[in-house]
Amino acid sequence: MEPRYAIGLDYGTNSVRAVVVDLADGTEVANSVYDYPSGEHGILLDAKDPNLARQNPADYIAGYVESVGAAVRAAKKDRGFKPEHVVGIGVDTTGSTPIPVDAVGKPLALEPKFQQNLAAHAWLWKDHTSASEAAEITAKAARSKDGYLSKCGGVYSSEWYWSKLLHCRRTAPEVFEAAHSWVELADFVPAFLTGRTDPGTLPRGICAAGHKAMYHEAWGGLPRKEFLRRLDPELVRVAEHYADRAVTSDQKAGELTAEMAQKVGLPAGIPVAVGAFDAHMGAVGAGVKPGTLVKIIGTSTCDITVWPADQPLEDIPGLCGIVPGSVLPGMYGLEAGQSAVGDIFNWFVKHLASSGSADGQDPHVRLTREAEQLPPGASGLLALDWNNGNRTILVDPLLTGLVLGQTLHTTAAEIYRALIEATAFGALTIIKRFEEYGVHVKEVVNCGGIAEKNPLVMQIYADVCNRPMKVSRSAQTCALGAAIFGAVAGGAYRNVSAAQRKMTGTKPTVFRPRKASAAVYADLYGLYRQLHDAFGTTGYKGQLHHVMKDLIAIRNRVRQGGQ
Amino acid sequence: MEPRYAIGLDYGTNSVRAVVVDLADGTEVANSVYDYPSGEHGILLDAKDPNLARQNPADYIAGYVESVGAAVRAAKKDRGFKPEHVVGIGVDTTGSTPIPVDAVGKPLALEPKFQQNLAAHAWLWKDHTSASEAAEITAKAARSKDGYLSKCGGVYSSEWYWSKLLHCRRTAPEVFEAAHSWVELADFVPAFLTGRTDPGTLPRGICAAGHKAMYHEAWGGLPRKEFLRRLDPELVRVAEHYADRAVTSDQKAGELTAEMAQKVGLPAGIPVAVGAFDAHMGAVGAGVKPGTLVKIIGTSTCDITVWPADQPLEDIPGLCGIVPGSVLPGMYGLEAGQSAVGDIFNWFVKHLASSGSADGQDPHVRLTREAEQLPPGASGLLALDWNNGNRTILVDPLLTGLVLGQTLHTTAAEIYRALIEATAFGALTIIKRFEEYGVHVKEVVNCGGIAEKNPLVMQIYADVCNRPMKVSRSAQTCALGAAIFGAVAGGAYRNVSAAQRKMTGTKPTVFRPRKASAAVYADLYGLYRQLHDAFGTTGYKGQLHHVMKDLIAIRNRVRQGGQ
Repeated sequence: MEPRYAIGLDYGTNSVRAVVVDLADGTEVANSVYDYPSGEHGILLDAKDPNLARQNPADYIAGYVESVGAAVRAAKKDRGFKPEHVVGIGVDTTGSTPIPVDAVGKPLALEPKFQQNLAAHAWLWKDHTSASEAAEITAKAARSKDGYLSKCGGVYSSEWYWSKLLHCRRTAPEVFEAAHSWVELADFVPAFLTGRTDPGTLPRGICAAGHKAMYHEAWGGLPRKEFLRRLDPELVRVAEHYADRAVTSDQKAGELTAEMAQKVGLPAGIPVAVGAFDAHMGAVGAGVKPGTLVKIIGTSTCDITVWPADQPLEDIPGLCGIVPGSVLPGMYGLEAGQSAVGDIFNWFVKHLASSGSADGQDPHVRLTREAEQLPPGASGLLALDWNNGNRTILVDPLLTGLVLGQTLHTTAAEIYRALIEATAFGALTIIKRFEEYGVHVKEVVNCGGIAEKNPLVMQIYADVCNRPMKVSRSAQTCALGAAIFGAVAGGAYRNVSAAQRKMTGTKPTVFRPRKASAAVYADLYGLYRQLHDAFGTTGYKGQLHHVMKDLIAIRNRVRQGGQ
Repeated sequence: MEPRYAIGLDYGTNSVRAVVVDLADGTEVANSVYDYPSGEHGILLDAKDPNLARQNPADYIAGYVESVGAAVRAAKKDRGFKPEHVVGIGVDTTGSTPIPVDAVGKPLALEPKFQQNLAAHAWLWKDHTSASEAAEITAKAARSKDGYLSKCGGVYSSEWYWSKLLHCRRTAPEVFEAAHSWVELADFVPAFLTGRTDPGTLPRGICAAGHKAMYHEAWGGLPRKEFLRRLDPELVRVAEHYADRAVTSDQKAGELTAEMAQKVGLPAGIPVAVGAFDAHMGAVGAGVKPGTLVKIIGTSTCDITVWPADQPLEDIPGLCGIVPGSVLPGMYGLEAGQSAVGDIFNWFVKHLASSGSADGQDPHVRLTREAEQLPPGASGLLALDWNNGNRTILVDPLLTGLVLGQTLHTTAAEIYRALIEATAFGALTIIKRFEEYGVHVKEVVNCGGIAEKNPLVMQIYADVCNRPMKVSRSAQTCALGAAIFGAVAGGAYRNVSAAQRKMTGTKPTVFRPRKASAAVYADLYGLYRQLHDAFGTTGYKGQLHHVMKDLIAIRNRVRQGGQ
C-alpha cells in the first residue's frame, strides 16, 4: 500500500507553519515556517494605542504559498513522498481574529483605498481596543433571557468577535460600512484555499463561531437579531451574511483550487477541512479524549478537554467556553486557560533576574538549575499567578500578581520557583473546577514549548496536582491536529478518534508525583486558595493572619529535614 | 573666653567612633573610627549557629584607646584645641549587649580560661540564640501581676538582657557560674574609663536597664526576685550584684583615670557621663524634645521621642519601650522602630536588581533615578515592609514581605519605589500610633545614612506622612549626642536641653509634602492599612477583593494625568 500524507497549516501570531504528516503514525515528514513580513513580527501596531494589534491579510495568503510550497519541496526529498499522496489539508489559526471582507469575501485591506486603514485589516486575537464594547455586551447579555453568557464563563471578552465589530462600527464607521461581513481567520484560510469565499455561504467553523461569536444551537445559532440590534442595528447585517449553521472540522470546506494548488506544487482538488483554533486542534494533536485534559503551555495556557454530547453536563462557572463539536465532533469542547504562564517567567527574567550565570548561560537555565535544588516549601514564599489577570476560573482581567513571604535572604531563584508553583496552583484550580462539575480528569497531557523544554516545571506540576504529567510526543501538536482533520476530511480515517489513535501519543518519560513533595504542596495549595479567594472573589470570610506564620512553619519543617 | 570641647564615643556594631565637638555650636573638630579587629567585621560567629553574634571585650578597650587617641591628635591640629579644654566625655553603645564579668568587673573573656568560650564574650544586640528563653520570659511575665510587659510593647525580645542571661545559664552553665554579674556595654565603657568597675555599685544607665532589663520604678527597679527565681534561681544572684537605682546620662559615672587618660593624651579627671544606647543619644544629637520625633534611618529604624514625666501618659501598645529618663532626664523616652528599611532596599538590589546602569553607576543610584520619574500610584503596586518582621506596631518577627499589583510590564524601578513607599507607610503607621495615644508629633527630624544620602526617600516620606521631613545638621548624631551628655556631666551646660539648643539643628533643606502626591498616598495608605491589618492582626473583618482593582483605578487615573 502506498504511503498517504496530510498537510497541517498552523497560523500563529507571528508566523505560519506547514507540516507534512505521514498518516500511518503521525510522523512529521517535512516542516516549514514563514514569518509574516508586515509590521513588527507580523503585527501592525499603533504608537498611539498600545491595545491595538492588527495583521495584514496579504500575509496569510503569502504564508500559505511560502510555507506549504517549502514543506512540499522538502517532503519530496523523502523518497516515499509524492504530492498526489496528500489526501487532505487542515487549517488552524489564532482567534478570535475577524477580518472585514467585501461581498465576494475579499479582505477590505487588500483594496488600495483601505490599505493604510488599520481598522480594515485583520483584528488579531490579542487586540484589546474593544474593552468598553465587551463590557457593554456582557451587561446586555446578562439581562437577556437567552443566557448568552452561560457558555462563555459569564463574561464576554474584549478579544472576541462582536466586541471587535462593535468597536469598529463606532470608531471606524467607513470600514464597517464597506464590510459586507466579517470572517474569522480560521474560516478565511479554507475559503481562499477552496475558492468558497462568499461570506453568506462559506463554511463557518463551530469552534470560532461557538467560542467567540456567541453561536449556540440552544438559541438557534448566532444571537437573535433583537439582541444584536440593541448593541447596534448595523450588526444585524453581519449576522445576515453568515452561514445558517456552523460546522465541525471533520467536514470538508471544499477542495483546493487549481490556482492555489499550482502555487505550492500540489494537485488541485485535495479536500480542505473546515478550520478551527490552534489550541483546539492542538488538543486533538495531543490526543484529547473524554477524561484527558490537554494543557498547551506557552506564554499562556489553553486547557482543553471534551465531554460526550449525549451525556448530561452542567454549565461550568468560569470556563471560557463550552461548545458542542468545537474540538471533536459529537462532543462538547471545554476550554479553560491561564492568562499568563511563560509570560510570567519571562517577565521575571527580563525585569528582575536578567543576569545569566558566570559561565554565560541563559538566565532561565541558571534560575531553573538553582530552583531545582530547593525543596518544596523551603523558601517560605507563596505567589498568585495573576500578572495578566485570571482567565479560568475567575474570568477577571483586573487582577494582578502577588508574592509574599519575602525575607532579607530571599533569592531570585526562590521567587522564580514560587512563580512556577503559582502557575501550578492555578493549573490545579482549573482541574478542580472541572471535577467539581463532574468532568473527571483521568489523564493530563502537556504540550507547547515549556512542556517540551522545562522538566522542572513539569515535575512541579506533577507534585502540585498530585497526578502524573505526560508530554505529547509531537512538538507541533497544533499543526499535527490540523493534519488529522485534513486526513479525516479527506476520508483517510472514518473519524477523528480513529486518526488520533494512530497519529498521536505521549513521550515515554512521565513526570510522576513524589509523595513528600505532594504533601507539602497540599498545604501550600490550601494557603494559595485562601489568597485566591480573598483577592479574587467577593464575600470571602476567612482570616489571613495565619498565612505568613504557616509558611514560616512549613519552611522551618522542610529546612529541618522533615516534611 | 577659651573654647571648650566634649568627646563623644559611639560604639557601633562593627567599629567605634570618637568625635571631638566644640561646645559653642556642636561643630565636629575631629573624628576617628576604629574597626574592631576580632571576628568578621568585629563579630564573633559560630558556623554551627547563624543566630549567634558575640564580640570580644578587648576590642572595646582597644577601641577607646585608638579612636580617642587619634581624635585627640587630630584635634590638636586645630589651633584652638588643647586637651585641657575637654570638659567631659559621653558614651553611647549598641545594646542590649551584656558582658559577663567577675567580682571586680573584669570581663570573663579576658581570662585565658574563657578566651575561646564564645559564651564568655559580649552578647551582641543582634545575637538571636535566646528565642525560646524570650518566649518563656514573655509567657511568665504576662502572668505576673506587676505588668512587666506593659513598658515594652507586650513582648520581651530574644535580643534583650534576661533572655541572653537565661540562655547562657542553660547552655553554658560554666560561664554563668563564673560570672559575678552581667554588665551592659553602655555601662561597661564608663566603668573602665573611670575605674568604677565593681558590678554591685558601678552606675547602671536607665536607658539599658529600662529598655532591656525590665527595670522600672513602678515595680521598684529590676523585676522582683520571686519572678527571676521562677525563670531560674541563679538569675537572682545577678540582680543582687546590680546598683539599686539606675541613673540618667546627664549624671557623672566618674572621672577619667590617670591610666586611661595617659593612653590617649588627655588629662586625668575629666568627667565621664553615664552611658546609654546609640539611638537614644542619637535622638538627643538630632534635637529630640516633646513634639519632635527623631527617625534614625539605616538598615532598620529607631523612632524616638520624649514626653514630660509630669504629664499623664498611657501605655502605648506595640512600642518597644517607655522608660523615664532613657533619652532626656525628666522625660519618658518613647522608642519605636521598623525592623528593616535600608536592609529591604539592599536585599532588593542584591538579589533582584544587581545590575548597575550602562554608565557604570551603582544599582541604587540607577534605580533611584528611574524611580524618581514615576508619579505616586502610577505603578499599581503596593508592598508590605515586613521582610524582617514588624517591630512597631505589631511586635511580630513572624511576619514577612509582600508585593502585589505586578503585571507583565512591572519594572524593577517600580518595585524599588513600592518598597520605599512601603517603609514610608510603616513610618506613618508608627506616627499614627503615637498620636492615637495622645503623643502629638509636631516635627520629624531624620538622621542616619539614608536620610543623608537619598532625597527621594525623604520626599516620599514627606508625601506619605503629609508633613515636612527635616534632616539633622550633624551626620554623626549618636556621637554628637554622647558629646552633649559629656558636656552636661562636665558642667558646661546646666542641662541637656540647654546643650541641645546650642549644639544641634537641622539642615536648611526641608522636604515638604506635595499636595497632589499626598492625596494619592492617602488612598494608597488606606489600602496598605487593610493589608497590614489583614495579615498582621487577628480578627480582621474587611474584604480584600477590591484592593487590586482600586490600585488599577488609581494607576489609570494617575497615568491619564489626573490625580
